[in-house]
Amino acid sequence: MENNPSSSNIEKLQRDCYNEWMRLQSKGMTELKQALSNGEKDEEEIREMIRTVIGEFKDYAVKRSEHCRRYSSNSFAPKWNTCLENALLWMGGCRPSSFIRLVYALCGSQTELRYANFLNGNTDDLSMAQGETRGGIDGRGGGEPMSELTAEQLFKINELHLKTVDQENKLTKQSASLQEDTADVPLAVTAFYKEVIGECDVDVERALDKHEEVMGGLLAEADKLRLSTLTKIVDILTPVQAADFLLAGKKLHLSMHEWGRLRERRRLEACGGGSSGGEAAGE
Amino acid sequence: MENNPSSSNIEKLQRDCYNEWMRLQSKGMTELKQALSNGEKDEEEIREMIRTVIGEFKDYAVKRSEHCRRYSSNSFAPKWNTCLENALLWMGGCRPSSFIRLVYALCGSQTELRYANFLNGNTDDLSMAQGETRGGIDGRGGGEPMSELTAEQLFKINELHLKTVDQENKLTKQSASLQEDTADVPLAVTAFYKEVIGECDVDVERALDKHEEVMGGLLAEADKLRLSTLTKIVDILTPVQAADFLLAGKKLHLSMHEWGRLRERRRLEACGGGSSGGEAAGE
Repeated sequence: MENNPSSSNIEKLQRDCYNEWMRLQSKGMTELKQALSNGEKDEEEIREMIRTVIGEFKDYAVKRSEHCRRYSSNSFAPKWNTCLENALLWMGGCRPSSFIRLVYALCGSQTELRYANFLNGNTDDLSMAQGETRGGIDGRGGGEPMSELTAEQLFKINELHLKTVDQENKLTKQSASLQEDTADVPLAVTAFYKEVIGECDVDVERALDKHEEVMGGLLAEADKLRLSTLTKIVDILTPVQAADFLLAGKKLHLSMHEWGRLRERRRLEACGGGSSGGEAAGE
Repeated sequence: MENNPSSSNIEKLQRDCYNEWMRLQSKGMTELKQALSNGEKDEEEIREMIRTVIGEFKDYAVKRSEHCRRYSSNSFAPKWNTCLENALLWMGGCRPSSFIRLVYALCGSQTELRYANFLNGNTDDLSMAQGETRGGIDGRGGGEPMSELTAEQLFKINELHLKTVDQENKLTKQSASLQEDTADVPLAVTAFYKEVIGECDVDVERALDKHEEVMGGLLAEADKLRLSTLTKIVDILTPVQAADFLLAGKKLHLSMHEWGRLRERRRLEACGGGSSGGEAAGE
């Protein structure tokens, strides 16, 4: 039988959409690093980069949502993710609240690093830790690093955290209720009365189509929440802090994907799976 | 390279464990049907069947938990499930509360069927609907069908529902917190400071091992909740009702798997994916 990949194959479109997103993640990472190393003198460049990054996420969400209208199930545990990533998914992506955890993690780690540098004899680093505006952490240019979040910024981030968790919980509940619905009329009852397992009928088809459509809608809602959380964080932070944060997000996403692949490959090699398990180790 | 499937390949063990579970689901379905068609005269046989079914679920959960200790990520969106099933998963399986939705769905549908039968001239069916103990629904033997749940049974089921949702929510929260942890020290911070994406170190390895272990523990907790909910429902129901309920659960599980496969196959055929998408249409 001929290998016939069609451009209308929805799974291929979804995979292409994902690959393009990962390419942009990688490209954005390099550009953010570059912009940050130029420091304050290019603050306008940094602002422009941030707008681009947010815009790319928005485009990705729109494209994904279009594909989901036709086929959403695939996006809740995509085949192109590693098992590690799929085990971490919430509504087809990361939890919006994890963006906020990332802000706190960066803030904490940069503060620690500065005090460690100070104890090693670099007094500049303490003055930075005490609030003097200057860059220089890990070889980068100027601007306030994450360790210099003001009380007002921290208050706003915390407020955003509470609201985000609340909205996350609402979406989680809707998804739970949707999952439970499959144990009700018409699916469970049709399954019960059918003599032949898996026999389909119009009611089942319609119910499953509807189910995928509503799940796709929830995924789009989740993407909206991810996007709005990202935008709000960026608005609270200074341009350099925001670029730091976006860079950390991209590095974490790309690293998790690679770590997941590495672990799957190593697991198979350790077990002597060899070529028989290539499918699991790759994508 | 030689195809060398090893019995120590953990993914193979997990897949075998799943295949065996699906075989038991199918076997249990046939046996429950048979026992129910024999009716009340074999109530002891029905009781024995129920004990076997619960015991098999317990064994499956124990086996799965053993495999999860070494590799849990794989169980949150297994490759052998269809996308439809994976999109419906909660902690590697169905939501325990969906068992209760199934009880209500069966109760409602059997009541409807009885009244419909009565309106079509079968007066026996109304007397059953009014509480007279007898079987006969869809050609089966005797015993109280689900449409004859007493007020006391309904009260207990409702009480169980509330407790189950509460415990489900607790596990969901723990899982959410675990997911968020990956955006913190050490993973996010290591990813941020590493120059090369995906470069691993001891801290990352240790953190990911620990993460998979704790996730595996949560999955075992979820299986415990599924098992205890199932057992409690069976205790509330009469033997015939319990057999009906377990039969419905197995039929729904097996049907969802088949419906998911059918939809994936049809989607690929419609898009001209042909052999290129065989992997997706298969498992």
